[in-house]
Amino acid sequence: MLKTVNVAIIGASGYTGAETIRLLLSHSKVNISILTADRKAGMSIGEVYPHLAGLGLPDMISLGEVDWTKVDFAFCCLPHGTTQDVIAGLPKDLKLVDLSADFRFSDTELYADIYGQPHRAPEIQKEVVYGLAEINSEEIKAARIAAGPGCYPTSAQLPLIPLLRNGQISPEGIIIDSKSGVSGAGRAPKEGTLYAEVGEGIHAYGIASHRHCPEIEQGLGAAHGEAVMVNFTPHLMPMNRGILSTIYVAMGEGKTADSLRETLVEFYQDKSFVQVLPEGVSPATRHVRGSNYCHIGVFADRLKGRAIIVSVIDNLVKGAAGQAVQCMNLMLGFEEVEGLRQAPMFP
Amino acid sequence: MLKTVNVAIIGASGYTGAETIRLLLSHSKVNISILTADRKAGMSIGEVYPHLAGLGLPDMISLGEVDWTKVDFAFCCLPHGTTQDVIAGLPKDLKLVDLSADFRFSDTELYADIYGQPHRAPEIQKEVVYGLAEINSEEIKAARIAAGPGCYPTSAQLPLIPLLRNGQISPEGIIIDSKSGVSGAGRAPKEGTLYAEVGEGIHAYGIASHRHCPEIEQGLGAAHGEAVMVNFTPHLMPMNRGILSTIYVAMGEGKTADSLRETLVEFYQDKSFVQVLPEGVSPATRHVRGSNYCHIGVFADRLKGRAIIVSVIDNLVKGAAGQAVQCMNLMLGFEEVEGLRQAPMFP
Amino acid sequence: MLKTVNVAIIGASGYTGAETIRLLLSHSKVNISILTADRKAGMSIGEVYPHLAGLGLPDMISLGEVDWTKVDFAFCCLPHGTTQDVIAGLPKDLKLVDLSADFRFSDTELYADIYGQPHRAPEIQKEVVYGLAEINSEEIKAARIAAGPGCYPTSAQLPLIPLLRNGQISPEGIIIDSKSGVSGAGRAPKEGTLYAEVGEGIHAYGIASHRHCPEIEQGLGAAHGEAVMVNFTPHLMPMNRGILSTIYVAMGEGKTADSLRETLVEFYQDKSFVQVLPEGVSPATRHVRGSNYCHIGVFADRLKGRAIIVSVIDNLVKGAAGQAVQCMNLMLGFEEVEGLRQAPMFP
Amino acid sequence: MLKTVNVAIIGASGYTGAETIRLLLSHSKVNISILTADRKAGMSIGEVYPHLAGLGLPDMISLGEVDWTKVDFAFCCLPHGTTQDVIAGLPKDLKLVDLSADFRFSDTELYADIYGQPHRAPEIQKEVVYGLAEINSEEIKAARIAAGPGCYPTSAQLPLIPLLRNGQISPEGIIIDSKSGVSGAGRAPKEGTLYAEVGEGIHAYGIASHRHCPEIEQGLGAAHGEAVMVNFTPHLMPMNRGILSTIYVAMGEGKTADSLRETLVEFYQDKSFVQVLPEGVSPATRHVRGSNYCHIGVFADRLKGRAIIVSVIDNLVKGAAGQAVQCMNLMLGFEEVEGLRQAPMFP
Repeated sequence: MLKTVNVAIIGASGYTGAETIRLLLSHSKVNISILTADRKAGMSIGEVYPHLAGLGLPDMISLGEVDWTKVDFAFCCLPHGTTQDVIAGLPKDLKLVDLSADFRFSDTELYADIYGQPHRAPEIQKEVVYGLAEINSEEIKAARIAAGPGCYPTSAQLPLIPLLRNGQISPEGIIIDSKSGVSGAGRAPKEGTLYAEVGEGIHAYGIASHRHCPEIEQGLGAAHGEAVMVNFTPHLMPMNRGILSTIYVAMGEGKTADSLRETLVEFYQDKSFVQVLPEGVSPATRHVRGSNYCHIGVFADRLKGRAIIVSVIDNLVKGAAGQAVQCMNLMLGFEEVEGLRQAPMFP
Repeated sequence: MLKTVNVAIIGASGYTGAETIRLLLSHSKVNISILTADRKAGMSIGEVYPHLAGLGLPDMISLGEVDWTKVDFAFCCLPHGTTQDVIAGLPKDLKLVDLSADFRFSDTELYADIYGQPHRAPEIQKEVVYGLAEINSEEIKAARIAAGPGCYPTSAQLPLIPLLRNGQISPEGIIIDSKSGVSGAGRAPKEGTLYAEVGEGIHAYGIASHRHCPEIEQGLGAAHGEAVMVNFTPHLMPMNRGILSTIYVAMGEGKTADSLRETLVEFYQDKSFVQVLPEGVSPATRHVRGSNYCHIGVFADRLKGRAIIVSVIDNLVKGAAGQAVQCMNLMLGFEEVEGLRQAPMFP
Repeated sequence: MLKTVNVAIIGASGYTGAETIRLLLSHSKVNISILTADRKAGMSIGEVYPHLAGLGLPDMISLGEVDWTKVDFAFCCLPHGTTQDVIAGLPKDLKLVDLSADFRFSDTELYADIYGQPHRAPEIQKEVVYGLAEINSEEIKAARIAAGPGCYPTSAQLPLIPLLRNGQISPEGIIIDSKSGVSGAGRAPKEGTLYAEVGEGIHAYGIASHRHCPEIEQGLGAAHGEAVMVNFTPHLMPMNRGILSTIYVAMGEGKTADSLRETLVEFYQDKSFVQVLPEGVSPATRHVRGSNYCHIGVFADRLKGRAIIVSVIDNLVKGAAGQAVQCMNLMLGFEEVEGLRQAPMFP
Repeated sequence: MLKTVNVAIIGASGYTGAETIRLLLSHSKVNISILTADRKAGMSIGEVYPHLAGLGLPDMISLGEVDWTKVDFAFCCLPHGTTQDVIAGLPKDLKLVDLSADFRFSDTELYADIYGQPHRAPEIQKEVVYGLAEINSEEIKAARIAAGPGCYPTSAQLPLIPLLRNGQISPEGIIIDSKSGVSGAGRAPKEGTLYAEVGEGIHAYGIASHRHCPEIEQGLGAAHGEAVMVNFTPHLMPMNRGILSTIYVAMGEGKTADSLRETLVEFYQDKSFVQVLPEGVSPATRHVRGSNYCHIGVFADRLKGRAIIVSVIDNLVKGAAGQAVQCMNLMLGFEEVEGLRQAPMFP
């Protein structure tokens, strides 16, 4: 197979960068030609990520060393904040997916509010499509830049957007109780993500203040047609990968758990990566591990008129690198599943 | 110190039995004189639980071998269902704490509904007090039998009962999203609790149908003065110990997260084991591990008029053996904290 | 791509069966046409392994229902003991890989000694080649049946056989200290592999008596030219996947850690799945997770004339299903890496 | 009970400091009157370690603020290197246990070699006794300063010293393969101890170069009467607590696994914290978790004349804080088990 598209991964030393590499290695059309890293420029990827040693990947170089004339597509895997400046400095016709939070808000004022600093590349924001692949596929196909959604927002929006669009659920009082593995916190050393601080325990964090909450509300608001406010409570779990969101909703007038489930089944019937599970089957993060799948279950609540929706993804795949590859496939006209065919890994 | 009270542990081969032993070993008034086990009768405790070897404990005997004239108090650590018959066969004046589900419902019809079989010792039920120690301490002091609450119900009721009693929260639409370690499922081998099935993953189970839900509702109904119906959704976590319940509530008219927190602070100010955390501090199961503590945090929701309450316990201690010892202390007139002074173990 | 080879997986309900399915799903030449399971016949694979739901796999049938005229190749993923009879009952010209221990010993008397029962298919044993793919590739290509090596033996033999063959190490006093994840123990419920029994702890088992020890000695003896006796001490680890073997050896006269490493580099230079790491780099199981790789590191000991060799594999892949697929590739003339190109998954 | 001895914990913000606090809270003679921390001076212990909140502990102060006239005993829980200067600056008659590596080597030249810097308080070294409590109890009773042994060295020396002293094993070619939980690496954030780097995997580190190796050799050399050189290979495990050392030895002329075991049984018969397990019982770290116990098992090897010894401890208790408290008990004439009576916590 001829791999004809040369791809650069900007920020290859973080977990999302490494995961993008892992997935692209099985992509039949793409050649990983550039890996950048700031402090680790000059190192081989195998020194930084031994699981990627010996696979024929290029050494890491600094951003300034990249010859962009030889790059057809880029993944930007940098932290939020610095990403704006980096992308502003790239060739204006380079297609790319950004995995940071910097371009997820169409309203740059909102970004400024949430992230506590003015947006420094508002003109680029206009070229960006929110890369929730199953929801915005047509817009993504036409975009120059896709902003990869946050991991939590992916797990919450995939079930909720179709239900809101179809009036199956009330936009009032949606409660999203999410549980995430630790890799979502990144590779930068912090006391709070040390093994001994996380192992054998669980806690909630960012209660009523997590930055993914307004991102979720942006998507739900668009689906509903007017602003939606939700509860979003994330928890840190003693596991590497996976997000499970348990979502508590009031159903629309006359709706049932069955009608919710059917709405989702129908909405996702032609989509490769979203599986709506049969009645009574409870999704588990371990059953999507390493894959781009999202599994969704819908359950009647004991409380009248209410339902419980459970969705699971691998935070590093459908919640980051996998969805980014999916966006690239849409943007470059490849098969949507290319590079993403790996079955989940269990146990 | 003279250990003058002879205690029997019926069903010493399960996790709650072993944990009761661990705690009683540090109790200054109590002598563990009898350990029973059915299939494992004749074995030393060290063969069944090597962490308890060499600590001077008696070998396990069958229930029929027990000389009850030499027993002052008993802990019954058997599975639900069989417990009724066992307790019915014990001396009628023997004080005891039962850790099974068999005597948790004052209404034996309700028990029959939930557990799918008629209650076989309804006359004994009349002697039983629900052993939620901070809530029912006076009744427990006077009781012959205390029924140790379930682990999930303990984590939910400790914060909710004082708030309902004081009208701080609405009895409508309470949502209890709970996360538990695996030891709560017991030591009987099942595919679903194998390491490889539970490690590196999370899932919800018993959605809208878990047997601890009516137990929670019984306690909340009593606090509120009329029937309360709640959502209760448990999740299985890749950790040995710990329960965290994230509870979503509508506040009472004019109430605030601060008034909720103050209500709890006041209610528990003289209680040794319930700590209401300061504003902004998020409880973690690892900070109560191995101890009889319950930590509670209260947070304002982004949703108007709503609050988020987080409570954590060690499911085997405050959720089982520790609370049982606490009940015994109340029933026998010991200091409430005796045998329960161990600080939590972290990391 | 035309998938022209129809494959049956006998015993699809165990972990090695499920892992064989996962890998074959990405194999370009192979069609999974038959899945068998005894007690679970009639169920869909998704009911037994939800991570494999929705991937177009056939339902499970009983062994008796298989039409063998439509099967080109089989993987036998049954427990040892029953496997002999099953394979004896299959068509005599069906090529297959057996993943059990039943055909790993060329000497069926030795099998009888170790497994405590006479071998019931000694005539079939004569057709079997030991499927250590890098070592026996030519014999495997010509074989009707390959016996997939045990997980521990794979991790030990891959570094030791080339070193013994080349006189780099002494055959005397080899010590193999191995550490394994829990999935190696299979999916049958046992107290000893419950999460709460394995989490947060480690212990050795089968000390000086594990059945994989004679299997290792068979391979090392063949490499050395006469019988070799080793120490093999396995440990159970709180993780799902991975084996690490730390091997302590006396070096041959005049040999050094460098000469050992160079011998391995040379031996494996044309092999896709064995990577000999540079001096000073310590192999980690997490860096081969989910892949068919074996990483080997060689280190000088502080003790004169001695070296330390560390090898890592994923027990379910290179230690079971992956090596089985590799054997099939050799036996059917496919590219050796077909179906096994997935990069390791980290974190 | 009157708690009459005022204790200072210098460096209360690390894991060993916190664990010392946890244990001393149950000590009947000791009052924790001073907690120091540099950067965290002014904070409550509950802010740094929420599991110790609400237990009546003093706030943390800087070292300079301590009124030493009110301190009867100190635990120094600082990192190696800085400890020398701190202890040199303390009152010259203050009894203390140091948990760092700074005073573990009676030969300060050796310290300089291993730690790469000259020892800055060699005169204090003369007052120090190596605090391996079961081995040096008489010397510890008389000492002003005890140096708490390293965690790995404790697990290795407890079985090996009595065996060497009694000629049960050869001093040649001892191989110590150790496996440790992550808390041994401390609370300072490092990439290598992040959850996502450690979870679901294992690797060896410091192969043939770990600083605990010469510490082990110092103790074994003293037991043997002349210098001993060993292999020591530590591995990092995905668990919070626990060390298991698997030790491979050649037995002395005419010795057997039984004679080794009997030697250990006899040596430790009057010792509270070392349990020599019966033949065939394999020690597990989870069975000493949270306690000051060391469990030792002895097994005949398949290799003629060789034995396998397995020892387990909790690295933070017997490997650090517990042994430090045990030393204090010896130095102050308390019962040796005071503050250390907690049974292990399982699961």
